[in-house]
Amino acid sequence: MDDGTAHERPPVDFDDCGPAMHALAAELFPICRSITGDGVRETLAILRRHIPLTVHEVPSGTQVFDWVVPPEWNIRDACVLDERGERVIDFRRSNLHVVGYSVPVDVTLSLGELQEHLHSLEEQPSAVPYVTSYYRERWGFCLSHEQRLALPEGTYRAVVDSTLQPGSLTYAELILPGATEDEVFLSTYICHPSMANNELSGPVVAAFLARWLASRPRRYTYRIVFAPETIGALTYLSRHLDVLRERVVAGFNLTCLGDDRAYSYLPSRDGSTLADRAALKVLGDTRPGFTAYSYLDRGSDERQYCSPGVDLPVASVMRSKYREYPEYHTSLDDLDLVTPAGLQGGFGVLRDCLELLEQNRVYRTTCLGEPQLGRRGLYPSLGTKATHEAVAVTLDLLAYADGSRDLISISDTIGAPVARLYPLVETLVREGLLVADDAGGPAS
Amino acid sequence: MDDGTAHERPPVDFDDCGPAMHALAAELFPICRSITGDGVRETLAILRRHIPLTVHEVPSGTQVFDWVVPPEWNIRDACVLDERGERVIDFRRSNLHVVGYSVPVDVTLSLGELQEHLHSLEEQPSAVPYVTSYYRERWGFCLSHEQRLALPEGTYRAVVDSTLQPGSLTYAELILPGATEDEVFLSTYICHPSMANNELSGPVVAAFLARWLASRPRRYTYRIVFAPETIGALTYLSRHLDVLRERVVAGFNLTCLGDDRAYSYLPSRDGSTLADRAALKVLGDTRPGFTAYSYLDRGSDERQYCSPGVDLPVASVMRSKYREYPEYHTSLDDLDLVTPAGLQGGFGVLRDCLELLEQNRVYRTTCLGEPQLGRRGLYPSLGTKATHEAVAVTLDLLAYADGSRDLISISDTIGAPVARLYPLVETLVREGLLVADDAGGPAS
Amino acid sequence: MDDGTAHERPPVDFDDCGPAMHALAAELFPICRSITGDGVRETLAILRRHIPLTVHEVPSGTQVFDWVVPPEWNIRDACVLDERGERVIDFRRSNLHVVGYSVPVDVTLSLGELQEHLHSLEEQPSAVPYVTSYYRERWGFCLSHEQRLALPEGTYRAVVDSTLQPGSLTYAELILPGATEDEVFLSTYICHPSMANNELSGPVVAAFLARWLASRPRRYTYRIVFAPETIGALTYLSRHLDVLRERVVAGFNLTCLGDDRAYSYLPSRDGSTLADRAALKVLGDTRPGFTAYSYLDRGSDERQYCSPGVDLPVASVMRSKYREYPEYHTSLDDLDLVTPAGLQGGFGVLRDCLELLEQNRVYRTTCLGEPQLGRRGLYPSLGTKATHEAVAVTLDLLAYADGSRDLISISDTIGAPVARLYPLVETLVREGLLVADDAGGPAS
Repeated sequence: MDDGTAHERPPVDFDDCGPAMHALAAELFPICRSITGDGVRETLAILRRHIPLTVHEVPSGTQVFDWVVPPEWNIRDACVLDERGERVIDFRRSNLHVVGYSVPVDVTLSLGELQEHLHSLEEQPSAVPYVTSYYRERWGFCLSHEQRLALPEGTYRAVVDSTLQPGSLTYAELILPGATEDEVFLSTYICHPSMANNELSGPVVAAFLARWLASRPRRYTYRIVFAPETIGALTYLSRHLDVLRERVVAGFNLTCLGDDRAYSYLPSRDGSTLADRAALKVLGDTRPGFTAYSYLDRGSDERQYCSPGVDLPVASVMRSKYREYPEYHTSLDDLDLVTPAGLQGGFGVLRDCLELLEQNRVYRTTCLGEPQLGRRGLYPSLGTKATHEAVAVTLDLLAYADGSRDLISISDTIGAPVARLYPLVETLVREGLLVADDAGGPAS
Repeated sequence: MDDGTAHERPPVDFDDCGPAMHALAAELFPICRSITGDGVRETLAILRRHIPLTVHEVPSGTQVFDWVVPPEWNIRDACVLDERGERVIDFRRSNLHVVGYSVPVDVTLSLGELQEHLHSLEEQPSAVPYVTSYYRERWGFCLSHEQRLALPEGTYRAVVDSTLQPGSLTYAELILPGATEDEVFLSTYICHPSMANNELSGPVVAAFLARWLASRPRRYTYRIVFAPETIGALTYLSRHLDVLRERVVAGFNLTCLGDDRAYSYLPSRDGSTLADRAALKVLGDTRPGFTAYSYLDRGSDERQYCSPGVDLPVASVMRSKYREYPEYHTSLDDLDLVTPAGLQGGFGVLRDCLELLEQNRVYRTTCLGEPQLGRRGLYPSLGTKATHEAVAVTLDLLAYADGSRDLISISDTIGAPVARLYPLVETLVREGLLVADDAGGPAS
Repeated sequence: MDDGTAHERPPVDFDDCGPAMHALAAELFPICRSITGDGVRETLAILRRHIPLTVHEVPSGTQVFDWVVPPEWNIRDACVLDERGERVIDFRRSNLHVVGYSVPVDVTLSLGELQEHLHSLEEQPSAVPYVTSYYRERWGFCLSHEQRLALPEGTYRAVVDSTLQPGSLTYAELILPGATEDEVFLSTYICHPSMANNELSGPVVAAFLARWLASRPRRYTYRIVFAPETIGALTYLSRHLDVLRERVVAGFNLTCLGDDRAYSYLPSRDGSTLADRAALKVLGDTRPGFTAYSYLDRGSDERQYCSPGVDLPVASVMRSKYREYPEYHTSLDDLDLVTPAGLQGGFGVLRDCLELLEQNRVYRTTCLGEPQLGRRGLYPSLGTKATHEAVAVTLDLLAYADGSRDLISISDTIGAPVARLYPLVETLVREGLLVADDAGGPAS
């Protein structure tokens, strides 16, 4: 890990980094990623220009829990040629045109025979669908339904210039040490070809969150993982389960963070972990129209992170959720759907969640009864009808800082946005009236 | 117990046994049952032609908790004769015409004097009410209010040819052993004279449930009791309390199971026992318009089974509940009100509850992370937008099979009918991916 | 403590003591109370004619938790004189005209300079506001906004003939011993000058509750405290915290008990203490339109009694709550706002709460199954359709008297007003069918 290099990069205005994130997404967009292969490596190489990732390779054939790391897939070219030799379906135009993990083929066949290898969406006739066949050997092409209907009868040649052979699965991680060994876990995936919201918004926001975290003091240690979905998450888990279960206090699966539409939340399986509480507090305080999904609506790596016996406290805070927006898993999930403002929003809501995790502690008052705030200039010296209003939030904070509630709980109880408590806590700690419960000094 | 004889009876189609149950109810209908006496014995003798009941006699005077088994009551005849010697109120026409436990009498008296011994229902003028006086010596007659108003002035002779003397209380039980000593307890009562929904539907459905249970493998042992209400239940409890408290995991009080109208549920006092959970799951999944009563609406033997210090997990699943339908405790509760289809419905809902008890176990997954269902043919090999739908219930079942939830809880959590889980569980157990928690093999 | 003298006072009809309470409030009304000084002592001397209070003095400068007992304030006179020497603002007309704890002054100044020392309410132009400055040395006058606007330009003389010097803080307490050392804590305050609902209704109702308690057998010991708000409550706590935390099972802060309008409830910080449960049960059963506030709406001595580390079970049952009625903390909070009927209502609701605390115990049945109520004359001997109605509450009480629920909980569960249970409990205890759990004799 070469943590130092990150500090030499030009400073970022984290309140306005949407354009920079969008530019990074645009750079990554054309690469043909899959669950293994050079597309993943190329992607990580570009990300390493922003954050000091450590890259790991896990050989094909490695057992990971109930799974086995598959052969590595690489592809140079793929097309369907018509009788005149024109590339009517062309991988070079969009890597979505080939079914992921297609085995090599070079075959001439009738349109009828070709149809069995074609995939399109009748209900979205202009979109090229995203299709994969990781664990069964197949080849195939994806195209718009419009184009499919227009294909003339005749003879076609289908060519997939790919390799599927022993190699390795590639993932990367970054650990940003904090004041404690307790960890916040961030995970995102890097296995989808040219799609923007469901996928690139995730690694791009993860990279900029890492830069923001690197730029500030950290109470928690941060573990940030970039891995192919499912098999990558299982691989990472199989190598780090004990340490993750011991240290991780909260985690977020970073996906679907780039469009302009909804904010949304998908809980951990448990539903009441610190990650869930932080997400719901931030979203409730600041994005009140957000959509709350159920764990039954899950579909990303929380499937592994929250599985029985793993049980990590991992939730998802998203913009428009996978499977819930029409462009999902098609060529329409592009860099028009994902915008600088959308990415800034996705980055911002996660940053707020992480800021809350850093601020959130259990506090207790240091004196019995209410403290005399007046002599500290924190209470009106003149008692009138209006006295109470002026100090209500401070008094409420003191009333519930009883060593049993963290700031999230106090905010819930007193009905004040949690961010409004941060400066009040700072003042009361400075005055010696509040103390973090893990910093000694109980009152009772 | 002559368990073997039951197996020699002709086989029953348990999906269409309503007519057979109705025929049995019709055979039992004319018998004059009470809390003691030959009517109970005759009833049990008929039931023994269907199931191998063991009959017990408990002497009058036996202390059962706070109560004492009363003298035995038997009746040969009863009538009110008019001045011409005509039987104007006649026990031979309906045994409801005499107040239950009427002491012997042969007296001549004026209409005014007779009125003090008559019972009718002004608000249901054509119905003969059901009235008893078990614990205070009385005699009386019941008649329709219409008939009562039409009685001419004059002299009447009232005759009750009954005996009330030391004898015994009669009850019966059947134990069907299962793979474990844990028991399911079924109780019904046999103390009402000619009434069909509130009473005969109970013993008739109980008899056919016993035949169905006898015909299949059983994880649980079943204890099925036929006893007079209240004093019989107390008697049974006083003799078996320790074993019941130790072994019974769920129980149902079988009553009011024969009409065509509602399905209803009355909880145990605790309200969250396995019996309650099974009843609510079955009714919610399959009889969604059912009526849920409160324990405050109780009125049958749950009053004893759920009393403080007894605390058996006994709930009631019924059709139209006692006290809630107009024909209750009158001559209108007859074999027109109770129908073959109504009995089939009552039998069916209880059979579903018992099937659920048999199926319901705590499962846990045998691997960390999601298993690779694809190589077992349980997951689509082609990854598309629609992949998730196809396997959602299987994945949800695996996600919540964490060793802390039984199938009822998983069904509640994932929103799938519990019966839909039975075949999925069977497949996953066969594949070695799920294991019942009480069968060893934890994952974590 | 001269407990005996209380018994020599003339008997009170506690169902009609509103006029006597109003007369006592009228006697106390003119006295200029503050958090220290002779007004408090004079008030307590009058209250001692009704109840045998013990009076305590705590020297200025005494540390109480985070606070220090302030210098003692006394005032003989105060006025603002116009150029003709007329007392245009006159303490003698109402003690609200001077800012509480005003330091001595005798100064001549222009209207403009005087304005900086004047307080009025633009939104309530006819009311004189109540203003204090306990912990910062100031002087000032309060007047109606109407009068303020009418003050002509010119020269004024402001005179405050007060003393602010070392002395003591005065409070009083009364302990009424009961059968147990467990205590019920009643607290009220005596620091506001001429205001009736928010303040005098509190000590007046407290005094009459004390007389009612003295007149009857008591299961609990009662500790009744009259102290200045905040600093007095803190002072009392600092001297008695250990014993209060050990013994107090429930407490009420007595304030705002005299108007005719609302009934209201403000919970303890915990919200589920015995005091809260008793208050909610009485209000819910008998004053169903009551207003339930949140602890966030607090503003009286529960701020101290419920603070972290103190955590006494103290709730408030009030009529119109401080800060919620327009006359609050102005000259309009007078003896027209507070009425004999209003005080009787405030007294009555608190008496009901204390009666409930006395009656409320955990009961358990002494037999298994339902007892045979019939042979005790508690169950109809004739069994008919209507049997259940007649005894439903008794049966429900027996069904839930399982040693885990007190009467409040049973009342909640069975939906019967708790006061309806008192005579039933008495009967069942007399019959030996119920036993208080703390009096031995478990059933199971």
